[in-house]
Amino acid sequence: MPVIAGVQFAAVEAGVRYAGRKDVVLASITAGASVAGVFTTSATRSANVLDCQRKLHAAEDPKHGFAFLVNSGNSNAFTGRHGDASVERMCQAAGVALGIPDAHVYTASTGVIGERLPDEKITGAMQQLAATLAPDNIGDAAKAIMTTDTFPKGASAQVQVDGTAVNIAGIAKGSGMIAPDMATMLVYIFTDARISQPALQTLVTDLNSKTFNAITVDGDTSTSDTLLIAATGVADVDVEGNDQFASALHEVMLDLAHQVVRDGEGASKFVELRVTGAASDSDARKVAMSIANSPLVKTAVAGEDPNWGRIVMAVGKSGAVADRDRLSIRFGDILVAENGWVSPDYKEADAAAYMKNQDIIITTDLGLGAGVSIMWTCDLTHRYIEINADYRS
Amino acid sequence: MPVIAGVQFAAVEAGVRYAGRKDVVLASITAGASVAGVFTTSATRSANVLDCQRKLHAAEDPKHGFAFLVNSGNSNAFTGRHGDASVERMCQAAGVALGIPDAHVYTASTGVIGERLPDEKITGAMQQLAATLAPDNIGDAAKAIMTTDTFPKGASAQVQVDGTAVNIAGIAKGSGMIAPDMATMLVYIFTDARISQPALQTLVTDLNSKTFNAITVDGDTSTSDTLLIAATGVADVDVEGNDQFASALHEVMLDLAHQVVRDGEGASKFVELRVTGAASDSDARKVAMSIANSPLVKTAVAGEDPNWGRIVMAVGKSGAVADRDRLSIRFGDILVAENGWVSPDYKEADAAAYMKNQDIIITTDLGLGAGVSIMWTCDLTHRYIEINADYRS
Repeated sequence: MPVIAGVQFAAVEAGVRYAGRKDVVLASITAGASVAGVFTTSATRSANVLDCQRKLHAAEDPKHGFAFLVNSGNSNAFTGRHGDASVERMCQAAGVALGIPDAHVYTASTGVIGERLPDEKITGAMQQLAATLAPDNIGDAAKAIMTTDTFPKGASAQVQVDGTAVNIAGIAKGSGMIAPDMATMLVYIFTDARISQPALQTLVTDLNSKTFNAITVDGDTSTSDTLLIAATGVADVDVEGNDQFASALHEVMLDLAHQVVRDGEGASKFVELRVTGAASDSDARKVAMSIANSPLVKTAVAGEDPNWGRIVMAVGKSGAVADRDRLSIRFGDILVAENGWVSPDYKEADAAAYMKNQDIIITTDLGLGAGVSIMWTCDLTHRYIEINADYRS
Repeated sequence: MPVIAGVQFAAVEAGVRYAGRKDVVLASITAGASVAGVFTTSATRSANVLDCQRKLHAAEDPKHGFAFLVNSGNSNAFTGRHGDASVERMCQAAGVALGIPDAHVYTASTGVIGERLPDEKITGAMQQLAATLAPDNIGDAAKAIMTTDTFPKGASAQVQVDGTAVNIAGIAKGSGMIAPDMATMLVYIFTDARISQPALQTLVTDLNSKTFNAITVDGDTSTSDTLLIAATGVADVDVEGNDQFASALHEVMLDLAHQVVRDGEGASKFVELRVTGAASDSDARKVAMSIANSPLVKTAVAGEDPNWGRIVMAVGKSGAVADRDRLSIRFGDILVAENGWVSPDYKEADAAAYMKNQDIIITTDLGLGAGVSIMWTCDLTHRYIEINADYRS
């Protein structure tokens, strides 16, 4: 992971819930940076998310830097007024430690819902966090924000803009409770490019719809989903409207989103769902999401069974306009069904062999219009049940 | 199960897919009966469902009786033009055997999607079916329509209307691919009451919304869902507008719906979800369905974990209006959460003990209005994965 000029990271063992591992991260961002973000739309979102959303809409003070403060182990969601007070104390402590206004501190908490956040452990670690900030600590940060993740997630890109190298680096955590009703996890992205806050916000909202909002593990929606991006401007090149920068950022976000799906709770397969020929893009997305979240499709994938009848079922229940006799389905390059029935050339053995791959592409063409969508998901396995039937014990 | 005057049943081994068990059912219903039904709304519903829907809207001939013809093992869904032709041949064969018009024959097929229905096995068995019709064969019929069901499902009621005994008997099959986007399974109900077709249709549509449309196993929607009811009129008492009859029919439908949930694929727990205090009934239903279909809630129930944070999550993602600080949650009579946080009197040990019950009631009050909903579901276990990862092999 490249160092991003203008950002420093620290991670410590604060013992919020987990023992023997780092669980609190502080990122300190230089004055003059732009910060943008997208958040869960859950009606029961955490106190931290509500606080971040208020701050993003407030005026920023270019004289002061920013901080991201993140803990794992406890989500501070559904913790009533206590939760709001915890966020306030965390912002104050980080503000004091870094000499910045509280309004420039963005917090996130991830983990168990409904238990009081022991914020004193986090504020108590603030001196140590501030004292150990370093530009090359992003790897530690990626590890410290993990909950049920089985590996830390990072992605980076470098792109030349007007002859100047611009760097992008991002980290993410997420494994279960992943659904595309917003960013679906914690994601922090940093770049040394310069870009105005409104332009950065517009760009990240657009790219989010094609990346973190296009993945699902179990259709459940977190109360803590947060994506924040900071552009420090230290590289001294403005990237507003620059296509290469946008495409490099897209690549980093997509890479992180795919890593989350690959680390989906219990996942053994990575599935790309391509929907084409729908009456509209919105219909295509309905179909893709219906297939992606169908337990019957997901268990068939786990069983390496080319059970295309379940794709038909998921198309049928999606609410999108569909016509049995125009629908076609492909597993990889294998045409399975067309004209309302199994293809005459289809051989089950071919499809069964294809399903043994770890990465699977399922294409559904509705034969109706120009609507397209692409989503990514994983299979539903015994391991998902194991992880979630005893997560808290 | 009581005999319903005016209806006879036969079930035979036709070898559609399964060996060594009965798999085709014929029900013969007397002339003058009223037939009503509700069907899946899937855009990829089976040829049989489409045919039934057309027939229900056509005029009926009071001189002729009716037939229900049902096979298990193959759903005849997504079988293109062949599927339509299969239905036509089945209706013709039953029409000839019973001396009734094809338009009075309602078929249903349930089982694997996308494989050609060997309808010649069904039509070939027609003579044997017609020859073995008997009033007391409904138990055989209940067994013959099973697919992944682990027990046959039947329910009955007797009610006095104007001094005359009226009988109701119903059978159902359904276990997986159960979601409340219509009747969600095959259900056949018979009564000797007299009631006009439009009145019967109105009644069954209303009761369906509180019974079969209020259960979910996995959120997946069948392509074959069919509920048909025949009122033979042989008891010679008109039940139009009669509350006792309506409530007896409600009871039979609810009993069958609950049996389907109890037999949900892999189910080890029966869960009743009560939602109160929502801004509207529609919001209450959104919340109930969101909880009922959440894999994280369902795995927590399987693990006997009173993980009420996941209820909060499911409320949040439902799309219904919710306010963290007005929400309260109960497991059975145990108040778990209120005022945006865990209740001060809550003891985890009490809730953990409660979760060991086989039947669990979870009540969510949104504290906003008068909207209510009640739904039933089951847990998500290893057995669901086992059943569905290798259903076809």
